Amino acid sequence: MKSYNVGMIGYKFMGKAHSHAYRDLHMFFPQTTVPKMKLICGRDESGVATAAEQFGWAAHVTDWRELVTHPDIDIVDINAPSDAHKEIAIAAAKAGKHLFCEKPLALTLADAREMLEAAEAAGVKHMVGFNYRFAPAVQLAKKLVAEGRLGQIYHFRAWFLQDWIVDPTFPLVWRLQKEIAGSGSHGDLGAHLIDLAHFLIGEMTEVIGMSETFVKERPLPTSMTGLSAKGSADAPRGAVTVDDATLFMARFANGALGSFEATRFAPGHRCTNSFEINGSKGSVKFDFERMNELQVYFTDDAEDVQGFRRVLATDPSHAYMDAWWPPGHTIGYEHTFLHEVVELMNAVSEDRQPVPNFVDGVKCQEVLEAVDQSIAQRRWVSISEV
Amino acid sequence: MKSYNVGMIGYKFMGKAHSHAYRDLHMFFPQTTVPKMKLICGRDESGVATAAEQFGWAAHVTDWRELVTHPDIDIVDINAPSDAHKEIAIAAAKAGKHLFCEKPLALTLADAREMLEAAEAAGVKHMVGFNYRFAPAVQLAKKLVAEGRLGQIYHFRAWFLQDWIVDPTFPLVWRLQKEIAGSGSHGDLGAHLIDLAHFLIGEMTEVIGMSETFVKERPLPTSMTGLSAKGSADAPRGAVTVDDATLFMARFANGALGSFEATRFAPGHRCTNSFEINGSKGSVKFDFERMNELQVYFTDDAEDVQGFRRVLATDPSHAYMDAWWPPGHTIGYEHTFLHEVVELMNAVSEDRQPVPNFVDGVKCQEVLEAVDQSIAQRRWVSISEV
Amino acid sequence: MKSYNVGMIGYKFMGKAHSHAYRDLHMFFPQTTVPKMKLICGRDESGVATAAEQFGWAAHVTDWRELVTHPDIDIVDINAPSDAHKEIAIAAAKAGKHLFCEKPLALTLADAREMLEAAEAAGVKHMVGFNYRFAPAVQLAKKLVAEGRLGQIYHFRAWFLQDWIVDPTFPLVWRLQKEIAGSGSHGDLGAHLIDLAHFLIGEMTEVIGMSETFVKERPLPTSMTGLSAKGSADAPRGAVTVDDATLFMARFANGALGSFEATRFAPGHRCTNSFEINGSKGSVKFDFERMNELQVYFTDDAEDVQGFRRVLATDPSHAYMDAWWPPGHTIGYEHTFLHEVVELMNAVSEDRQPVPNFVDGVKCQEVLEAVDQSIAQRRWVSISEV
Amino acid sequence: MKSYNVGMIGYKFMGKAHSHAYRDLHMFFPQTTVPKMKLICGRDESGVATAAEQFGWAAHVTDWRELVTHPDIDIVDINAPSDAHKEIAIAAAKAGKHLFCEKPLALTLADAREMLEAAEAAGVKHMVGFNYRFAPAVQLAKKLVAEGRLGQIYHFRAWFLQDWIVDPTFPLVWRLQKEIAGSGSHGDLGAHLIDLAHFLIGEMTEVIGMSETFVKERPLPTSMTGLSAKGSADAPRGAVTVDDATLFMARFANGALGSFEATRFAPGHRCTNSFEINGSKGSVKFDFERMNELQVYFTDDAEDVQGFRRVLATDPSHAYMDAWWPPGHTIGYEHTFLHEVVELMNAVSEDRQPVPNFVDGVKCQEVLEAVDQSIAQRRWVSISEV
Repeated sequence: MKSYNVGMIGYKFMGKAHSHAYRDLHMFFPQTTVPKMKLICGRDESGVATAAEQFGWAAHVTDWRELVTHPDIDIVDINAPSDAHKEIAIAAAKAGKHLFCEKPLALTLADAREMLEAAEAAGVKHMVGFNYRFAPAVQLAKKLVAEGRLGQIYHFRAWFLQDWIVDPTFPLVWRLQKEIAGSGSHGDLGAHLIDLAHFLIGEMTEVIGMSETFVKERPLPTSMTGLSAKGSADAPRGAVTVDDATLFMARFANGALGSFEATRFAPGHRCTNSFEINGSKGSVKFDFERMNELQVYFTDDAEDVQGFRRVLATDPSHAYMDAWWPPGHTIGYEHTFLHEVVELMNAVSEDRQPVPNFVDGVKCQEVLEAVDQSIAQRRWVSISEV
Repeated sequence: MKSYNVGMIGYKFMGKAHSHAYRDLHMFFPQTTVPKMKLICGRDESGVATAAEQFGWAAHVTDWRELVTHPDIDIVDINAPSDAHKEIAIAAAKAGKHLFCEKPLALTLADAREMLEAAEAAGVKHMVGFNYRFAPAVQLAKKLVAEGRLGQIYHFRAWFLQDWIVDPTFPLVWRLQKEIAGSGSHGDLGAHLIDLAHFLIGEMTEVIGMSETFVKERPLPTSMTGLSAKGSADAPRGAVTVDDATLFMARFANGALGSFEATRFAPGHRCTNSFEINGSKGSVKFDFERMNELQVYFTDDAEDVQGFRRVLATDPSHAYMDAWWPPGHTIGYEHTFLHEVVELMNAVSEDRQPVPNFVDGVKCQEVLEAVDQSIAQRRWVSISEV
Repeated sequence: MKSYNVGMIGYKFMGKAHSHAYRDLHMFFPQTTVPKMKLICGRDESGVATAAEQFGWAAHVTDWRELVTHPDIDIVDINAPSDAHKEIAIAAAKAGKHLFCEKPLALTLADAREMLEAAEAAGVKHMVGFNYRFAPAVQLAKKLVAEGRLGQIYHFRAWFLQDWIVDPTFPLVWRLQKEIAGSGSHGDLGAHLIDLAHFLIGEMTEVIGMSETFVKERPLPTSMTGLSAKGSADAPRGAVTVDDATLFMARFANGALGSFEATRFAPGHRCTNSFEINGSKGSVKFDFERMNELQVYFTDDAEDVQGFRRVLATDPSHAYMDAWWPPGHTIGYEHTFLHEVVELMNAVSEDRQPVPNFVDGVKCQEVLEAVDQSIAQRRWVSISEV
Repeated sequence: MKSYNVGMIGYKFMGKAHSHAYRDLHMFFPQTTVPKMKLICGRDESGVATAAEQFGWAAHVTDWRELVTHPDIDIVDINAPSDAHKEIAIAAAKAGKHLFCEKPLALTLADAREMLEAAEAAGVKHMVGFNYRFAPAVQLAKKLVAEGRLGQIYHFRAWFLQDWIVDPTFPLVWRLQKEIAGSGSHGDLGAHLIDLAHFLIGEMTEVIGMSETFVKERPLPTSMTGLSAKGSADAPRGAVTVDDATLFMARFANGALGSFEATRFAPGHRCTNSFEINGSKGSVKFDFERMNELQVYFTDDAEDVQGFRRVLATDPSHAYMDAWWPPGHTIGYEHTFLHEVVELMNAVSEDRQPVPNFVDGVKCQEVLEAVDQSIAQRRWVSISEV
């Protein structure tokens, strides 16, 4: 069986999720080309060494340049903080490596476009990490839309609600700093919603947004890991330079109306990545906190038994689920990454671009940027303008 | 338009619910024969006078004998405490009045049978107040079963969970005294489940139960109304002489298995009157706390969109709902009584027995008694034994 | 006990709901001043006569002018189609009658302001029919906000989703004609959301909206009642002149962000009038299809048991619920009107303005109009502009 | 870091789940003693070789005797079909190996006791695979009970509902044959409920059950994997020799009442492993199909905001969750096995018995057997009798 060697940059939250996907892929998807966990890179020698040992990487380095030019590496997986994506991706592309980059592709649309151009110029495969597409319930939504079972689409409404920074003493982690994160809820959470909209409904033509930073200063952090961090209320404080919440409305090319809301200030919502689609023949609803479920409604159900069906997308008929457990035995967050890597490996071995790829990453960034402009200029902005 | 004169005995919880049904019937069901609110009876002159004025009864008396023999009265509605049902019903039947009696029909099976015999001997109409049958969502469940849309029935499981006496200082109201109430959760809550089982699945052949009184003594009450009451922790105490919880298992004549649980010791459940039916072609689930909804599952739904549908039984296609509001505009507890009275008035005016009637009341009492025997004798008891 | 004589104009959907409220008020709220159902008005003699008889009105007329000047009438209840509100209200005010007008107050902001001025000039009481405020679960939300139990408010998101006109052959009823209805989903459904926002969060400062009519022509109707109607696919067709869906974003004076969506094109949603509030100390969620429930979250719950609580607002501690049934015995749509009329009667007898009154009606109309302008002009519009 | 060598027998459904747990343990629980995937055994050489390669076992054998006596092996993991457990476990114990055996421990109570005796005689560690204990939401339920936060326990009701054999043409797989599976829904599903009852509430004193085989003959299978299988309607047929559904009632030593239901004939329920506990201070509800959630109710919540809380047990305060993803990022079925293996490895390295162990396995078997006797003899059976 064919295999490809992977080199990965970053080993925190996303690094762990990706590592796990590589580690388990062959066990659950034995027909898929195997990713070999060759090399992992992190700036902190001790940290990356520990990660390599725990996650199962064959070796580690601390300089990403060494990794992206390493002759053994076929695929470069980039999940460093967002501000580092561009430089790494371009260097890796130039070195002829296939690219798998976490979202958002870059801090700006211009950067994202440069990355796409570099990848295309180098003729390498490129994938972007919109993992939520790969939840089987989301795949089912896509299937229903694609097969016309929801009819003409009228509405897409989506909200990604979290609550991890509601406490004003939560520290100023990198995700709250514009120079590293690019934006706040908008690029972190909204980007996922935008990609789901593109995946499920299609392209948007114009947008208008609004945005707010509710807590404008926060204590500097003393330690952090994943989304959690520690600080102290009497620590020195710094300015929050990203949005706490961003909302926008959109028109889609197919005539549908979109509403989007991303916030980190919704107590009780740990990770409510949720959307609803209404079409002339039916509707679907999804909430990532119940990621194995899709609510489905059809207008042509018998008159006396019409209602949203709670479909547990764990049957063999649902995407990817024949690789897992019997029906009703649910999967979790991390599984979306395995499915993502299935697509990556299949695409590389079949010599085609994976989906979603940098084109999708750029399209997402276009909307992010159009929304930003619409906020700054307080007007509707066409996607074609940006 | 034809009308009948009603005389009602009792004016508390059920008295209010019945009065409201009579009061509003013509407004929402103008095709139905009109019940005239002629006479109401209660032992407390001042209490019943106030109730008559508030509810809209033309007159009141304090002696039920006067009511049941009053020449103007066509229908006698009995919602006095359970220990008074028998004597009143028999007297009313002898006086040639139609009977509408709250459940449970009587304190014992023997009494219930006497009541049925008296009604049959007198040739009057007789109805028993199993109001939950008349929730549109329950009617939908019945329709699905009757039309074979759930196939062969395998399981009926039902539980009626409340929590109003969990606090051990809640006082010793009449519903906790065997000589007045007959039994506790069993006759109060379990009786409803048994009737729903009869309505939806059919008759049982044998049962075995278990029962418990968790709080064996309580302070005597100082006041009470509906299900709420006041007492004080240091009041004199008396023995609780009814069951706090009764469970039983049953076999149905059609081969289905039944499980039943009635308790007043389930914190968080204000009024969870709930059942599920599993058949070879589908399932339904009902919970009275969401009484406008029926969860419905069909095995022959398309493979990728199988799931319980949340049917909001508020469309015109659902029983009784064309009398109310547009779809999605839900109804409440009290509406079940209006629907019940629709059946009562239709039956009386069409010269047929209403359903459910005393035969159903007796059948319910047979199961209650068989369960009691099974508990006392620690063995399975056939319904045909009692 | 004091009483007031009511004269009502209109006898269809809202007329029935109001009639029922008057009819039952004294039974359930015996301490409240009694509304006497004196006179009902409708243009169709036979229709209004039937309604009067069914609903319990003492008399009927076909000319509303006769009603609003009738010396016996104290309160004029206006639930004629929206285009008739203004003329009737002003005439009634001039005749010194108290006013109870269905929402939206008028077809335009200017008309609504005239109505308010007329009422104030006449010194009469005036109420507007935003009945959803009076659901006990909504009252609980208000209480939590008012008592500071949700902290500083960050987000209000609301959507009113229906599906009764998704079928393109559904006929062109009056609610789809601008000259009668004023607007479509915006004034019909959005108006309720706006009023709830005012009630729960406070005033908005600026808005921007978008709107669409998905089905632009429909067959002319042959008959209609409530929200249902009959037509035929091959009937002559007319233009739909109102919006099928309107969305908007808003800023509130207190710094909160708002998102609103009203549509009649959401299959599976019969009457999803839903909102969520996120504050620094907690969140609440409401959905009218489960109107007895409020989902409540507090950030200061113990760390290991944080989660949205499903509060069944049927306990005696919840607004209006001690008038009804024991805990867990739910109420329905029509009960909101009884509570509304409690407020009306209390206000009139206490010689104070009811809440919500025409000031609230005008404020709602201001937002409706600002949104309309923002759509026409494709820009943010300040409420103070309109 | 210390490590132990594992040898595993069986490589199908449970074999895969266990393999995955060993494979990933170190990645997510780096502080835990490492299980080395040394040797896997299966009767089919080609099948087991493939499994070894996919899952990551160092070597494979086809004779379990070779495995249990292999000098390199420290821990023997037994997930062969239930009829093989006893012989393997006893041989492994005699060889001084620690034991990790899938449930049910054996086909009969006598066999289970022999296994426990053998393990105790050999002085080895022994664990039984009741994996549902290890769902974080279940751990939370246990914590709430153990800390007295639910008060005195009154009720435990549990049901394990599946629907994979509702179709009467589903073939006669080994799980439907008494000589291999021991029993049907009772030992497969009911055993989990019994163990959860022991874990959460404590021991039972007496039980009475009922049981049914709804489909008495089925076509012989042509192929099978996991819970799915293929057959053809016109294949030769064989008798189903196990129960399709088994229900029982129980008394617990602490005075609580228990009701249990296990069935494979509940359409719409793929894997509804569900329980509810009611105590004097609160209640909890769990459903495995939403395994990340626990519904929690406290009687001492403020009067106006009482309600079941939907606790998403994915916060760092919840058992095992600091090893996984940020709050709201849910886990799946397979994670229960990782947690189970954490306990196994910790116990072995700390030289203590893991929990649950063969004592728990025997206790579960006692209840299974007591229920069987109660069914056969149609009477209550004391646990102390069996």
